[in-house]
Amino acid sequence: MSALDILSRDPGSQARAGVLRTAHGDVRTPAFVPLATKGTVKGLEPRDVAALGYDMVLGNTFHLFLDPGAELVERFGGLHEFMRWDGPIITDSGGFQVFSMGHGTVADEIKGRASHGSDRSGAMLAITEQGVRFRSYRNGEERFLAPETSMEVQAKLGSDLALVFDECTPFHVTRDYTARSTERTHRWLRRCLDWHASNGPDGQLVYGIVQGGVYEDLRRESTEVVASSEVDGIAIGGSLGADKDQIYEVTGWATEVLDEHAPDRPRHLLGIGEVDDLIRGVELGIDHFDCAMPTRLGRHGMALVPDPESRWRVDLTGARFAEADEPILDGCPCPCCSAGFSRGYLRYLLRAKELTGMRLVTLHNLAFLARLMGDLREAILAGTLAETAAALRAGAAPGTLATPG
Amino acid sequence: MSALDILSRDPGSQARAGVLRTAHGDVRTPAFVPLATKGTVKGLEPRDVAALGYDMVLGNTFHLFLDPGAELVERFGGLHEFMRWDGPIITDSGGFQVFSMGHGTVADEIKGRASHGSDRSGAMLAITEQGVRFRSYRNGEERFLAPETSMEVQAKLGSDLALVFDECTPFHVTRDYTARSTERTHRWLRRCLDWHASNGPDGQLVYGIVQGGVYEDLRRESTEVVASSEVDGIAIGGSLGADKDQIYEVTGWATEVLDEHAPDRPRHLLGIGEVDDLIRGVELGIDHFDCAMPTRLGRHGMALVPDPESRWRVDLTGARFAEADEPILDGCPCPCCSAGFSRGYLRYLLRAKELTGMRLVTLHNLAFLARLMGDLREAILAGTLAETAAALRAGAAPGTLATPG
Repeated sequence: MSALDILSRDPGSQARAGVLRTAHGDVRTPAFVPLATKGTVKGLEPRDVAALGYDMVLGNTFHLFLDPGAELVERFGGLHEFMRWDGPIITDSGGFQVFSMGHGTVADEIKGRASHGSDRSGAMLAITEQGVRFRSYRNGEERFLAPETSMEVQAKLGSDLALVFDECTPFHVTRDYTARSTERTHRWLRRCLDWHASNGPDGQLVYGIVQGGVYEDLRRESTEVVASSEVDGIAIGGSLGADKDQIYEVTGWATEVLDEHAPDRPRHLLGIGEVDDLIRGVELGIDHFDCAMPTRLGRHGMALVPDPESRWRVDLTGARFAEADEPILDGCPCPCCSAGFSRGYLRYLLRAKELTGMRLVTLHNLAFLARLMGDLREAILAGTLAETAAALRAGAAPGTLATPG
Repeated sequence: MSALDILSRDPGSQARAGVLRTAHGDVRTPAFVPLATKGTVKGLEPRDVAALGYDMVLGNTFHLFLDPGAELVERFGGLHEFMRWDGPIITDSGGFQVFSMGHGTVADEIKGRASHGSDRSGAMLAITEQGVRFRSYRNGEERFLAPETSMEVQAKLGSDLALVFDECTPFHVTRDYTARSTERTHRWLRRCLDWHASNGPDGQLVYGIVQGGVYEDLRRESTEVVASSEVDGIAIGGSLGADKDQIYEVTGWATEVLDEHAPDRPRHLLGIGEVDDLIRGVELGIDHFDCAMPTRLGRHGMALVPDPESRWRVDLTGARFAEADEPILDGCPCPCCSAGFSRGYLRYLLRAKELTGMRLVTLHNLAFLARLMGDLREAILAGTLAETAAALRAGAAPGTLATPG
């Protein structure tokens, strides 16, 4: 039985709306999942995240493995108890971060940004069939992550939804490297599932990860391999392309295969969270997404606004906002805009590096995406996704569309 | 008519409990006043500060003068509107900060800490009868603050309670310097009051500042000079002594004179906020206090606890808390403890420099002091201050004492 109850499918696209059942409660899908990288959504408390309407957060296995360590978190009763979030938690596998150190620029490439090297003082030392040896960015110690280690760490963290350990292949490697890497990822998938079958905590869902780079045959094959395994859900990872068109095309190859081979199982798109990407991802049949973008942008003073021309964002630190007394977004019900904080005040706080400024823009950005996903979900349930998606793409403010039906 | 309604006077001490009436509402006294240094209580929103039970905050004229500037804040409708705090606001005069740059270590000396020099890149260039010329720590520009400038800035900020511009004399200067400096402070008091009489905003209260260093005759004389002026209230500033006994003695000289010459006007003790100092200050007849301590300590991982042996604080970053699953304080109703965050989790967040960790300990510390002041106020009203003060000094947790009467 799938963990996902699909309540409605959009007749004009691959989109679905439903409820993901987890050991710590339900997640309304499609959903954006905020990052609680190091056991906290940066600057917020769990009560804030819940009040914004989020059902689930994502903790990073790599960071928690290095600090404070899975054993310590386990001694506290697991990640839920440690961070005092009693709703569902996804943990990633650590693969993305560990391979980012090695490949240097995978994060930028996946997001289609210019390469500028790694900002980690850690380093990958060796990839073998067994796993990955690397140097910790925290203290220079040598550490080892293998499929079994990753699953064991995630078991100790006690997440509701674990991701298998994969090699996150970057964009700049050859087709041949991608093919060999994807095959290893499939062998690691088997080891993860075997470990989990014997040792995994009750009720923890496991998602496989589709790799294959930007090569259609490799992506389709990888999707089939993952879908034919006993995974509870499927995550789509790795380099999805150099630009948005390619990202959508590559994602579409995977979800097309999934519609055929695993139509009912939940799907996660890794590391994607720009507004237009979320809309398109939902149309492509993705159920949940995670991305550092809304929270990271918020800390740097970039606020989400319904403006496709500016990639849905505005840099509040700009000089033109020095005297701006309007909120980030008129009528926005978020804790920042509804309290009447002006762009001018936020600019002042952000330039002065005040924690409150980072917090307020983070709250706004997460509230914005929560409403966006809510609009998409409601539209799928009402059978009006095409109109809603068109309106949002044209710059309608999330949460302001007429109630469908 | 005094802005302070004194509801009860403690028969066994100089303590009073009352209500301070301001243009933006009432302040229950005695009260601690959290610092909103640069237009925000660091890491918190106004709704957080209000929820903790605070009626009033203090904004720093010096910092707001340099950035974003009084004109800009005025264009936003004043500091209340700018920072979206609709309760009472005190602004200090800027004297403390500008003289800290010049004297280098006045802040440390006032607090009785070892001298370690200024951490400001700004510098005082000249003190004259007219005012103070200094170099901005923000951009190296030369700026000038005089009694009239300070009052004008505070008028533009639109605070409910303005402090006159004074020279904050440090501990290490001679008696002769202190005497001459205190006389200049008195001349500046006159200029501030004259400026305010012609130009001050309606409803803005003005407090004079008592100086005089640690010299009894100078303190008493300064107190008489301030009390005999038309100030709405009296602040006690400058170097109060090298240790707590001296601080209490010096404060007591001033409040003794005030009991005689200005028994009904409100009194503020500048920059004092340790738990035992607040208790003693209340007994000495102080109505409100401000201090960076609870918020600054919170950002550095020091939490307030009812433990006189450790100066009411515990360093949560200590290795011994790595596995500590208890909250900062059992039974504490603050947003941090009541949500069940453990010392071990807070230690992890604080060491990882996570904003959420700084925020949570700040919330705890301010909640702790709000309950402490609430206990003292209730006890004065009930006529049981001696018992309450003794219990708090002995390590009773604020907010847990039996309801008096």
